[in-house]
Amino acid sequence: MAKSLLDTINSPADLRKIAPEKLPQLAADLRKFIIEIVATKEGHLGASLGVVELTLALHYIFNTPEDLLVWDVGHQAYGHKILTGRRDLFHTNRQLGGLSGFPKRSESEYDTFGVGHSSTAISAALGMALASNLKGETAKQHIAVVGDASISSGMAFEGLNHAGVTDANILIILNDNAIGIDPSVGALKNYLTKARVGYKPKQDNIIEALNFKYFGPVDGHDLESLTSILEELKGIKGPKFLHVITTKGKGLKKAEEDQVKYHAPGKFVPDTGELLPYDTKGLPLKFQDVFGLTLVELAEKNEKIIGITPAMPTGSSLKYMMDAFPERAFDVGIAEQHAVTLAAGMATRGFTVFCAIYSTFLQRAYDQVIHDVALQNLPVVFCLDRAGLVGEDGATHHGAFDIAYLRCIPNMTIFAPLDEVELRNMLYSAQDGTLKGPLAIRYPRGRGFRKEWQLPFDKLLIGKGRKLQLGTLIAVLSFGSVGANVSAALKDLPQGEIAHYDMRFVKPLDEELLHEVMKTYKAVVTIEDGVVKGGFGSAIMEFAQEHHIQIPIRMLGLPDEFIDHGKVEELQEIAKIDVESISSCLSNLLKKYKLPDA
Amino acid sequence: MAKSLLDTINSPADLRKIAPEKLPQLAADLRKFIIEIVATKEGHLGASLGVVELTLALHYIFNTPEDLLVWDVGHQAYGHKILTGRRDLFHTNRQLGGLSGFPKRSESEYDTFGVGHSSTAISAALGMALASNLKGETAKQHIAVVGDASISSGMAFEGLNHAGVTDANILIILNDNAIGIDPSVGALKNYLTKARVGYKPKQDNIIEALNFKYFGPVDGHDLESLTSILEELKGIKGPKFLHVITTKGKGLKKAEEDQVKYHAPGKFVPDTGELLPYDTKGLPLKFQDVFGLTLVELAEKNEKIIGITPAMPTGSSLKYMMDAFPERAFDVGIAEQHAVTLAAGMATRGFTVFCAIYSTFLQRAYDQVIHDVALQNLPVVFCLDRAGLVGEDGATHHGAFDIAYLRCIPNMTIFAPLDEVELRNMLYSAQDGTLKGPLAIRYPRGRGFRKEWQLPFDKLLIGKGRKLQLGTLIAVLSFGSVGANVSAALKDLPQGEIAHYDMRFVKPLDEELLHEVMKTYKAVVTIEDGVVKGGFGSAIMEFAQEHHIQIPIRMLGLPDEFIDHGKVEELQEIAKIDVESISSCLSNLLKKYKLPDA
Repeated sequence: MAKSLLDTINSPADLRKIAPEKLPQLAADLRKFIIEIVATKEGHLGASLGVVELTLALHYIFNTPEDLLVWDVGHQAYGHKILTGRRDLFHTNRQLGGLSGFPKRSESEYDTFGVGHSSTAISAALGMALASNLKGETAKQHIAVVGDASISSGMAFEGLNHAGVTDANILIILNDNAIGIDPSVGALKNYLTKARVGYKPKQDNIIEALNFKYFGPVDGHDLESLTSILEELKGIKGPKFLHVITTKGKGLKKAEEDQVKYHAPGKFVPDTGELLPYDTKGLPLKFQDVFGLTLVELAEKNEKIIGITPAMPTGSSLKYMMDAFPERAFDVGIAEQHAVTLAAGMATRGFTVFCAIYSTFLQRAYDQVIHDVALQNLPVVFCLDRAGLVGEDGATHHGAFDIAYLRCIPNMTIFAPLDEVELRNMLYSAQDGTLKGPLAIRYPRGRGFRKEWQLPFDKLLIGKGRKLQLGTLIAVLSFGSVGANVSAALKDLPQGEIAHYDMRFVKPLDEELLHEVMKTYKAVVTIEDGVVKGGFGSAIMEFAQEHHIQIPIRMLGLPDEFIDHGKVEELQEIAKIDVESISSCLSNLLKKYKLPDA
Repeated sequence: MAKSLLDTINSPADLRKIAPEKLPQLAADLRKFIIEIVATKEGHLGASLGVVELTLALHYIFNTPEDLLVWDVGHQAYGHKILTGRRDLFHTNRQLGGLSGFPKRSESEYDTFGVGHSSTAISAALGMALASNLKGETAKQHIAVVGDASISSGMAFEGLNHAGVTDANILIILNDNAIGIDPSVGALKNYLTKARVGYKPKQDNIIEALNFKYFGPVDGHDLESLTSILEELKGIKGPKFLHVITTKGKGLKKAEEDQVKYHAPGKFVPDTGELLPYDTKGLPLKFQDVFGLTLVELAEKNEKIIGITPAMPTGSSLKYMMDAFPERAFDVGIAEQHAVTLAAGMATRGFTVFCAIYSTFLQRAYDQVIHDVALQNLPVVFCLDRAGLVGEDGATHHGAFDIAYLRCIPNMTIFAPLDEVELRNMLYSAQDGTLKGPLAIRYPRGRGFRKEWQLPFDKLLIGKGRKLQLGTLIAVLSFGSVGANVSAALKDLPQGEIAHYDMRFVKPLDEELLHEVMKTYKAVVTIEDGVVKGGFGSAIMEFAQEHHIQIPIRMLGLPDEFIDHGKVEELQEIAKIDVESISSCLSNLLKKYKLPDA
């Protein structure tokens, strides 16, 4: 293959050497390169395609890395990675040991700030800019590229509100494509949309009201306009705001046409965008779909059910309820804090609110869970998808902490289903009017285990676990779907010696069952797909000490370190909660506790 | 004393019976009543004085509790409490077993939503309003009264952004007095201030841009204007916004003149507002002042130090640094999420950032601590004032959870000083360039123990505890200033049997010291001023199990329930971490573990 123009660009310095009229060719090369790699290696597609020209223009005009560039969320930064010395590594994107799917400080000096969760870029860039002023580096520019879904978040507003009263050399670029992962929502989005259709914002527009110099809107795919406005902005001190209009998925017809699907499409044919057939027949459903479909089933009979999601209708599968009962299902945008307190407000009026939110994003609403829901003991059901290791999205996205951070909150009930049927039954049990306070249900990313998931509902008793397998020497207590790994491990171990309990609830604990366990066995092993510190195992130990029981407890779960990206199975190995590690741990314990054969 | 008009008002229904021309008299009575009680019983003053007329007007015009009224933060709701059947109980405000200083659902049907932390009211009221629509109760109005400091928070923006695209019957009342606890900051505040000085917001103003019908500004002390505009708003469907200008401390000259001091002034002379002399001579400083003054001392020599607080310059004593080094100390307003990520951004540029924030409010920035600071292992120092039981502010404000919610985060170091000197030494140790990642320092509300606090600095080693008292049978491990209760308890117990260790760090643990402890003693007692679940005691247990050590560990700390308001000493008794409870616990353990005297 002939060398493309892109092949000659090993850094932004190289980029700055080429003539402006060659930029469109480079844009075409870059777009092609992204499509070809993502088509086979998978990953996020549409967002990076939408900012190909913007990425080129930014590195062309600004003196990165001296000028500091922060990508909000960062799944749109593939072009940035490719242009900043990582072209030849880009095929390792999101693989174990390979490039991260998000900007990451340890990866490159061009990645000024690690991202993954949305709406952090303004605050981070402002912090850098104020720091530069203190260092006397007043010529530097600090640029935050923020999407329209992301800028609607409260955190972004806090950053704008502060930046507007500073003399920071900060440039906020609104990358306005009218969509996040799902279409953007909210009053600000409606307002910004006016600009897209040619409405000229007045002097008193919402951005200028916050004391920014407002520029735009400009066509984000027109390199000439982009480079010319950025050149102008480069020389302007203080807080500036540039409104750029882009098309998510730009340059790949199918991606432009179905922006939700092509956010992260899986494998596809590079030339046409046609998705490669992926036979799901015979595969179990995803946990998220079991949640989404069951909720609709329940909502059909129970008009007191409301569903809320902060910007994750597709990812959480709340979309099923939004389609079936649009008046009772709410996508509030990237607004986790609001979502939780909104749910609390609804719950005071007699509704049972199912708040569908990824485990990692509930961290954004921690105070609201404590202060607005738990303290008032309101029946809000937190449906925490993506709990535990999530795989390729990596350290920013693992739902590692929820057991620990929720378990310390009074009034909380915390449940994890072993499988889809348990999830279904818990949803059913949560909406029959007997729920008296908040409930968190945590379940993993991806598919379940059972083809027959839609069994008749069965009421689960709060705080009751169950014995899955008999044994005499050692008891394994598992919490949630990682219990499947235990079951698999036990198959190859001597039978009759290791018992397996699915505890179901980490709070309240099944004290009766635990008393029985601690009387019966010589040792206990706990396992959870979450951090060990303060987690499920810790709860079991607290129980033992509280009841003056001295018993060895071995805790398996995520270690006290951030775990990077890779396949879930690979990461489970690292955390030693995969089938083989469990098996080997249990064999060793058996050796230790088994009485000599005499 | 002759019966005042206020004495005849036992509910809003009574209020609605009186003639409009009598309202000013009632306002005077209500103001006097608030002043007289707060003058002797203490509590929040200025905020409630500022909304006397607004409170009367709201209950006069709207049909509470059928129309639903939510007070943001709620320290301005004294008048509301007095008018809604709690006049004769109001003297018990903030006392153990008495009225809460904030609206609370269990206290009255007029308290539609429990508050305490700021900026929740819009989300809560919107949730209620959307719920009312679903119930077909489309005539109800839902009113959120929000201060100008509070509305600048991201969470409030998220609520506005959602409300603007709904058909909810919601009325947001901006109670604009240009001050929170400290003067308001930020670009939105500057924008709103224009309205205060007679600028007529344009059609395209920031609130209308979010799709609200905008009304005002009106004089919040003019009952006629207020009742007339509210009467009009009552009949308007959908999202509405009323801008009301008030004066914090209205009606008490000194309180109007020094709004920061009279936010919660302590005891004073009702007629004049003169503060009653409170002799602090000979008393130790407050922990917050040791923090604030030490930071200035360090910042004088170290120009890499930056201070940040989200709206708590006075409460955290960061004001000392703001006065001494205004360019290096930032009050970012009620914007905890932004504050933490701003700190992270600054830290990437080589600064050591001290982020002064109450323990309970760091809950608002939990994700930012994990995702922006800890994951990137940046040297941000979280100075968590008000950790543990805070007393009269009650359940919403106790810093109960920080040990548990921070301990599960990789890379975190967590320290609690036993006394002021330890706090000082830790601040010193955190800024000498050796700090490699995030550090949380938690210290309690109120005064320390030592008159001589400003001793020469001494470097503390990370992860090293110390033995305070020798013993042979039982070891007490304490974390933080609650260790003083242990020392006091030990004075009256047999000497030589109970050892006392100040662990200083819950993360990393002093493993060497713990190995020694667990080899030496028959039992361990842990004590912390924080929830036991997942907390310090839990960390000690995890250590023991990890090292296969079987030893009885008794954990003292906050129970798994929300603790209400009262004096700190009273609440410590409830939690059994007061001197007497500790003493009795230790005597019992001594009896159990002491060998018979033979």
